[in-house]
Amino acid sequence: MQRSLARLGDPVATVETPALVIDLDAMERNLAAMAAFARSQGVGLRPHAKMHKSAAIAKAQIAAGAVGVCVQKVSEAEVLADAGIADIYISNEVIDAAKLMRVAALAGRITLAIAVDSILGIDRLAEACRAASSAPNVFVEIDVGQGRCGVSPEEAGALARHVVSSGLRFGGIQAYQGGAQHLRGADEREGAVRSAAALVRAAQLSIASAGVACPLVTGGGTGTFVFEAASGAYGEMQVGSYLFMDCDYADNEPAEHAPRFEQALFVKSQVMSRRAAHVVVDAGLKAYAVDSGLPRVWQRELELFNYGDEHGILRRSGSDSTADLPLLGDPVWLVPGHCDPTVSLHDAYVAVRGGLERGVIEALWAVDTRGCLL
Amino acid sequence: MQRSLARLGDPVATVETPALVIDLDAMERNLAAMAAFARSQGVGLRPHAKMHKSAAIAKAQIAAGAVGVCVQKVSEAEVLADAGIADIYISNEVIDAAKLMRVAALAGRITLAIAVDSILGIDRLAEACRAASSAPNVFVEIDVGQGRCGVSPEEAGALARHVVSSGLRFGGIQAYQGGAQHLRGADEREGAVRSAAALVRAAQLSIASAGVACPLVTGGGTGTFVFEAASGAYGEMQVGSYLFMDCDYADNEPAEHAPRFEQALFVKSQVMSRRAAHVVVDAGLKAYAVDSGLPRVWQRELELFNYGDEHGILRRSGSDSTADLPLLGDPVWLVPGHCDPTVSLHDAYVAVRGGLERGVIEALWAVDTRGCLL
Repeated sequence: MQRSLARLGDPVATVETPALVIDLDAMERNLAAMAAFARSQGVGLRPHAKMHKSAAIAKAQIAAGAVGVCVQKVSEAEVLADAGIADIYISNEVIDAAKLMRVAALAGRITLAIAVDSILGIDRLAEACRAASSAPNVFVEIDVGQGRCGVSPEEAGALARHVVSSGLRFGGIQAYQGGAQHLRGADEREGAVRSAAALVRAAQLSIASAGVACPLVTGGGTGTFVFEAASGAYGEMQVGSYLFMDCDYADNEPAEHAPRFEQALFVKSQVMSRRAAHVVVDAGLKAYAVDSGLPRVWQRELELFNYGDEHGILRRSGSDSTADLPLLGDPVWLVPGHCDPTVSLHDAYVAVRGGLERGVIEALWAVDTRGCLL
Repeated sequence: MQRSLARLGDPVATVETPALVIDLDAMERNLAAMAAFARSQGVGLRPHAKMHKSAAIAKAQIAAGAVGVCVQKVSEAEVLADAGIADIYISNEVIDAAKLMRVAALAGRITLAIAVDSILGIDRLAEACRAASSAPNVFVEIDVGQGRCGVSPEEAGALARHVVSSGLRFGGIQAYQGGAQHLRGADEREGAVRSAAALVRAAQLSIASAGVACPLVTGGGTGTFVFEAASGAYGEMQVGSYLFMDCDYADNEPAEHAPRFEQALFVKSQVMSRRAAHVVVDAGLKAYAVDSGLPRVWQRELELFNYGDEHGILRRSGSDSTADLPLLGDPVWLVPGHCDPTVSLHDAYVAVRGGLERGVIEALWAVDTRGCLL
């Protein structure tokens, strides 16, 4: 673990680079806007902690009205439970018997839910829960257009029936349309969620026909939550990225009447080499993810056009001009292309109050579930 | 930090997923082959620990004849020094004054070297070293074709002169051609290194004209080291990836007479969802890097064609056939596209002896410098 010199109360200029920095004012506005939206729509808010990986932030979300959080991994749930988060949904399938024993053990300690999409997964979960005398909520995942996990709507009833007949508690339907989140046009996203909601209703029919009550439908993301909320089909929203935002979400055409979210997550970097027509900063792909496009430079006419593991190479936007290139040692604030995998590269957040130029360090938060892959 | 159930001596089948797994037999053959090559060529071997980030592996490299290791970050050097590595070269520029104080302090404890490419960098380093009464070796980086950091050969003399007149110890020339490493044709790579070596010689002339002796030229990588060694211009090789390999290096046309390296690094994943024409494994881009192409499936007719943060989606290679798709719970071994940033996603290695099918867990090694970005 590296040593950092960041100290509470020090000016933002002292933040060593590269660092993962939160603009707390912007984050709190995002937090409040989503909480207000959920309240106004009468849907539950269950933010995805796979994105921020922080117990402190999960607690802030719950304090603002979230019913709990989602995670994708058993180990994430364990770490957040140890840190005091008492209502966690593993919105993902787990098939390994040893991991399911851990799920069953955790369900004895907190309010826990998990997704399934196979008979084998249900059988193994049921066996583990019988041994542990615990009862997580079990959600059947249906594929609402993403083409990843999940059964067809028609198969949902049989699986829900199997959940119940295995002695498990059926929680409802997991229906996340990941493929719709970054369709650029608001109409496209709305259309994709309309299709998803129709599949949800078909699954509800299948489940009702199997004689099982369906308490809840959960899904939605930062790109589509207004449509899931408006559909009437969803009772809970699993939004994650709204809190920090990133270039990929910022490039979406906003939906009408949707709350707007501000960029609140940055990678602070520093010019370490200055050449004739470019500068090099000390942050490369071990400091930001590049799967959804390169990071962009915050409020400067610069573009990051190439990178290495530990380097980012910047030039004046759209030109080879050397005018106004930043100087050696100058800070350069990068906006990640994709927030989730960028966060998971860092050990800690530096949370800044009062803006990126004149602010001070208000908090240092661990990325608690960093490396929690199991 | 997640809990893992991996225990020494247990069979490889017990390795929980996703996990970063080393085939120790293959790694040791790679280790020995590179050490033998360096000895046969009479060049120093200074492997890049930015790749493996492990003190245990650095020690194995040094035990096999390496003169020390390289790193890219001050914090990496600190962590490896604390773990007992006594000769470290930060093959990268550092411009931040606070970090340079740490460099100067570390130079008082171990044999340390660092790269520079600016007067400001030299001045700040000199000031820090005066205060700490320490003397790292200082290498002037020249740009030998990568277009990232480094001065032109003609500027090298003035910088070397400035190093010496600042009371610092001039170590030589840093000349890494990162842009040549993945040129697919061996002839292309050879041509690029021929150009690089010519620039090195021009820099040597410039340095000699400035009245400074140049003890060493250091550079080279897994894609090009045979050419740097053959050039006669380089005294030290900074190879990293040879130890593990990855898809991107494996796709290079091998150079004649070059030692061959085997794939020794894998991400073990597991089928968590099985659909009509695809399966989903529990490893996504938080478990492997995608900057240099998607991971490939090891020795099975499967391809990973899509991914999410925590998911990989696989189908039969080149077809929609559902025949022979792996079953729920089956292990799937992935070969990373790019080893360095894949390693830096994990907390630990599981080192396996006796192969991926029937082997046993021989060691668990921390990724010691994971998250060392400063």
